[in-house]
Amino acid sequence: MSAPLVTLTTDFGLQDSYAGQMKGALLAVSPEARIVDLTHEIAPQGISEAAFVLETAWRFFPPGTIHVVVVDPGVGSGRRRLIIEAEGHFFVGPDNGCLSAALPDTARGLRPPEAGYEARPLRLPRSVRAFAFAREDLLPRRPSATFEGRDVFAPVAGLLAGGTKAAELGRRVTELLALPAFRGPPVPEGLDGMVMRCDRFGNLITDIRGGDLRPGARVLVAAEELEVARTYSEAPGLTALVGSSGYLEVALPNGNAAAALAAGPGTPVLVKQ
Amino acid sequence: MSAPLVTLTTDFGLQDSYAGQMKGALLAVSPEARIVDLTHEIAPQGISEAAFVLETAWRFFPPGTIHVVVVDPGVGSGRRRLIIEAEGHFFVGPDNGCLSAALPDTARGLRPPEAGYEARPLRLPRSVRAFAFAREDLLPRRPSATFEGRDVFAPVAGLLAGGTKAAELGRRVTELLALPAFRGPPVPEGLDGMVMRCDRFGNLITDIRGGDLRPGARVLVAAEELEVARTYSEAPGLTALVGSSGYLEVALPNGNAAAALAAGPGTPVLVKQ
Amino acid sequence: MSAPLVTLTTDFGLQDSYAGQMKGALLAVSPEARIVDLTHEIAPQGISEAAFVLETAWRFFPPGTIHVVVVDPGVGSGRRRLIIEAEGHFFVGPDNGCLSAALPDTARGLRPPEAGYEARPLRLPRSVRAFAFAREDLLPRRPSATFEGRDVFAPVAGLLAGGTKAAELGRRVTELLALPAFRGPPVPEGLDGMVMRCDRFGNLITDIRGGDLRPGARVLVAAEELEVARTYSEAPGLTALVGSSGYLEVALPNGNAAAALAAGPGTPVLVKQ
Repeated sequence: MSAPLVTLTTDFGLQDSYAGQMKGALLAVSPEARIVDLTHEIAPQGISEAAFVLETAWRFFPPGTIHVVVVDPGVGSGRRRLIIEAEGHFFVGPDNGCLSAALPDTARGLRPPEAGYEARPLRLPRSVRAFAFAREDLLPRRPSATFEGRDVFAPVAGLLAGGTKAAELGRRVTELLALPAFRGPPVPEGLDGMVMRCDRFGNLITDIRGGDLRPGARVLVAAEELEVARTYSEAPGLTALVGSSGYLEVALPNGNAAAALAAGPGTPVLVKQ
Repeated sequence: MSAPLVTLTTDFGLQDSYAGQMKGALLAVSPEARIVDLTHEIAPQGISEAAFVLETAWRFFPPGTIHVVVVDPGVGSGRRRLIIEAEGHFFVGPDNGCLSAALPDTARGLRPPEAGYEARPLRLPRSVRAFAFAREDLLPRRPSATFEGRDVFAPVAGLLAGGTKAAELGRRVTELLALPAFRGPPVPEGLDGMVMRCDRFGNLITDIRGGDLRPGARVLVAAEELEVARTYSEAPGLTALVGSSGYLEVALPNGNAAAALAAGPGTPVLVKQ
Repeated sequence: MSAPLVTLTTDFGLQDSYAGQMKGALLAVSPEARIVDLTHEIAPQGISEAAFVLETAWRFFPPGTIHVVVVDPGVGSGRRRLIIEAEGHFFVGPDNGCLSAALPDTARGLRPPEAGYEARPLRLPRSVRAFAFAREDLLPRRPSATFEGRDVFAPVAGLLAGGTKAAELGRRVTELLALPAFRGPPVPEGLDGMVMRCDRFGNLITDIRGGDLRPGARVLVAAEELEVARTYSEAPGLTALVGSSGYLEVALPNGNAAAALAAGPGTPVLVKQ
């Protein structure tokens, strides 16, 4: 059997060695772990952005994968360090909402229309087990006050990768902080959405689920009204389509929709259907 | 024997998780594969740029390496998905010219002077075998319409890494799209070149082959006329030299030639010899 | 036993394939090596920056790790290629000061107050062994004149990873170029420091060691006078604290200290104590 995969999602960027230090600390504990960067380019302190990136990515990894998220403005404040088991995957990070993708939509509920994504306490459903890390004695060194990514979360991921059970690493918790489901809520006209991310191509990725769209749905964004196409290549110009992550996105094939619309994270998107 | 290497060259950038998702999909199929990023910073839809980057890099990898290139503006349009075997390496990507580096110069021919690099149909020489992927039944899930990098090319690379023969993955093809050889054509004065890439140091990398230069050659670029030096450190200022990829480049040691000359990809370069 | 780790620190950036080519060359020699990028975003020719990044990171890797640094403005000039053994780790790179982190502070000495970090000849202490690479016959190909990162340093790291002894790769050297210790020197008022790096969060990392601070120390930077806090989260605004690397840094929690102070690498920092 191969050693588990570990994914990393952080706001550390790549010009510093912080991500590299995390990898060193992880591999020192579990030399066989295989690490995949999801991204280190989350905006500084972008908790909901990190959670959304993980939501769109983690199911493409095999069961047993350990997903580490370190977007941690509260480091050193005593917030809990979580280990979550869900659908055969593990999730490791601070208790601030950045691990929300591990939790089912039904438990997370919907955001109110026109509101943003704010973390709020959530009672865990039975399908998910979570633990607050409490075994500092297992860490290779005393954690620094400012970089638990390297000093706690990376070694914890290493311990899990090496076969330690999550239940051996801390006490069970029944409540944690989570963001609402990434799923634009219904409104009288259709669905209230917003842009969650602008990708490198200028595609605007929204929180509207492809599965929530009805045939003939029309998308209003930045004073444009768009139909829903099937692929980039069949679209004549600015278009809306369900992207590879299962979310509606607004794209300008061979161009940049974000620039063309002067839109970005937070821009409202209304689906009329 | 070690598991094969897989290189990735894409226009996905690193701020999104697309490259990470590809790695997850690949490792889910072939857990032992070792992945090396060539670059994910190809300009969006930069087919000839990707092909040139691969040209300058792939021979530094050991035989058996699988090179995946995903610069794919035609995703979802029905363009073929190729697997090419050449010189003991494998090449995987869309049929749009981005895999041209797998094909010998002699088959690709030269571009006309002062013209750019456009893909055109090429009849395969006997030394190269290519297949159009046709085994969607082997993929772990039905491909999305917009991200075949993750849903097709990564698992195909995983299958090859796991030992599946290219011939088992599709039907043989005898013609594909390819770019002309990256090799400035002869003109009466000498060689007609152009800048292909500007690297991080501001070095301007041209399509003039070092092997095509005659002693005493002089390089005309952006109204400067330069001699050819041997190393950066022996050059007093702006200089031309044959770089580590075997191509002529224009450099300003401890400075930035691209900025100094206001030059970049597409800038003409004339070699007088 | 697992194959050794190899870390890479370069000024190659990620838009080019240079780092990928190095990995290919390394894995061709040592297929089992596991490579971790520290960063490839060192400023071009930033020797002291690379040395400082390595200083703050290498001890978080397990013994036996091979640290390769390629910031090499003198490539092709005949400067020596070094292999250093120190504290159970290996360090590989050009002899220009970029490997200084391998050498003990006591041997390196302090910089004069208000001076920068310049490489100077250093006689090696007995605890450190260093070798000048002299076995080009072991390289897979004749090195290019401009990219010894790929053609020399990567294969040398691969040889070490595969079990070749450093002493088999070259002749012992007793003197090399090194930077002064990264440790702001004492002055009558306290300590003379400077900003070494600005990280992605805008934190200004100085060369003042946490261990050199006395209780009640005050930090003067860019016309601000700051106390020393323990964590980001307890700081009300602009603050100084000892960061995860053990160095004093100036931070603005949920903001950007570098922007707020218009400060960056080289900005003077005075510790009054």
